[in-house]
Amino acid sequence: MEIICVGNELLIGKTLNTNAQWLAKQATDLGITVKRITVVADEVDEIANAVREALKRKPQFIITTGGLGPTFDDKTLEGVAKALNRKLEINPEALQMVKERYEAYAKERRIGKVELTQPRIKMATIPEKTEAIANPVGTAPAVSVNLKKTILIALPGVPAEMEAIFKATIAPLLKQASSSNAFYEKSIYADNIMESTLAPLIDKVMHDNRGVYIKSHPKGEENKPHMEIHFSTTAENAEKPQETLQKAIAQLSSLIEENGGKTIRDKQTTHE
Amino acid sequence: MEIICVGNELLIGKTLNTNAQWLAKQATDLGITVKRITVVADEVDEIANAVREALKRKPQFIITTGGLGPTFDDKTLEGVAKALNRKLEINPEALQMVKERYEAYAKERRIGKVELTQPRIKMATIPEKTEAIANPVGTAPAVSVNLKKTILIALPGVPAEMEAIFKATIAPLLKQASSSNAFYEKSIYADNIMESTLAPLIDKVMHDNRGVYIKSHPKGEENKPHMEIHFSTTAENAEKPQETLQKAIAQLSSLIEENGGKTIRDKQTTHE
Repeated sequence: MEIICVGNELLIGKTLNTNAQWLAKQATDLGITVKRITVVADEVDEIANAVREALKRKPQFIITTGGLGPTFDDKTLEGVAKALNRKLEINPEALQMVKERYEAYAKERRIGKVELTQPRIKMATIPEKTEAIANPVGTAPAVSVNLKKTILIALPGVPAEMEAIFKATIAPLLKQASSSNAFYEKSIYADNIMESTLAPLIDKVMHDNRGVYIKSHPKGEENKPHMEIHFSTTAENAEKPQETLQKAIAQLSSLIEENGGKTIRDKQTTHE
Repeated sequence: MEIICVGNELLIGKTLNTNAQWLAKQATDLGITVKRITVVADEVDEIANAVREALKRKPQFIITTGGLGPTFDDKTLEGVAKALNRKLEINPEALQMVKERYEAYAKERRIGKVELTQPRIKMATIPEKTEAIANPVGTAPAVSVNLKKTILIALPGVPAEMEAIFKATIAPLLKQASSSNAFYEKSIYADNIMESTLAPLIDKVMHDNRGVYIKSHPKGEENKPHMEIHFSTTAENAEKPQETLQKAIAQLSSLIEENGGKTIRDKQTTHE
């Protein structure tokens, strides 16, 4: 899977890309490997290029976030249309979704009819031969299209909207595609051992426990080494993933202690 | 400029990509436009492909983060070497930097000589015809290379190390290259106006104030619109950037109030 995030706010460092992390975590937990995350500006050609390049790599899924709203700089679907060489058209289902949203809004606020102005119709203007996906918490529908090798899904950038649509409609799709290649992970922590001392120990444990991936993350201050050591595997890579992880953790912990380090194994795994 | 972040932890959603945001913000503030951020796995071919693709787009700078450490999965320089079609070699300056680090470490901890093992020498093994940059707070040197159209810089992934090297060595380089195209920004907030109502007002104000870019960021809950509206310009795009921003803000604020919205202009601009 690849993720493409559209938004100038990400490229000027105004906004932290929590959407990419959230999507990557969800996909990983569902057994789908994320191979690349790309962030591009709110420009049609930038978006189209990123989509074209991703399609060439033939991932099973491409998920875009951002750029589905009513303003001039919401250009994701224009970019997707360009990449797919398709026209944009008003999609009747999408238009119905947008209409219902504004009717509900008008009713709740006890105001008159909310007109379907051009910016509102824009949100229902999607590439031809694609499908509109209902947005349970916002106005702009998401869009999905089945291509030869790839299912491309365009989600909104507002986190609550992206998450709601993902959970309702995209997660089941990913789960079905992942053939239950579940992801298993656990972290331990080590003090008083340098990463360069740890390196050959990790090599040994990975060699002895095929299918386990071990990565050290230095967390300490200069000259006061504190290391998070992250163990992971998948159902595909290890027959008994939980046991395999535990075995690798036990072996590396012993090696660390033998080399003068101190391990902390019961600390809760943190997902920063 | 392009940013390439290397690290499986980013692709499994374990780690939030604060490095990309930090670098993007620094570059933007120095007047350098970030056009793309790419996240790839700790795999030589993935890294090499991302670097090659970025080079083809001829950005003035490419900054990579991560993958410079002593462990088996620190593969950024191998990927860069492959992309540039250069060999990896032990760089004498880099080796000296690494050596001094471990000598200082041994002295501080009152332990014997720290041996220059293979994982430690690895950190001084960099692509031929590139330059090692001192790391004031960690062991792995950074690397920089002047190519025809692009200066490529490889920084470590540990945030404190990346930031220290950037401030000491990279920021002056970017500042010099930016020809003082400083970036100016300000946010205001609006309640009680839908993004789709705001859209044509933004169009008008951008039309009337050339060089100002305005982007709305919905922050509210469903049916309770709260909008951040971000105004930005650069010294290149506006002769008197501060005044131009103020003029655009005043005009849009009036239009919002005319349309039943409420604006908050004195709230501190937040950088999330």
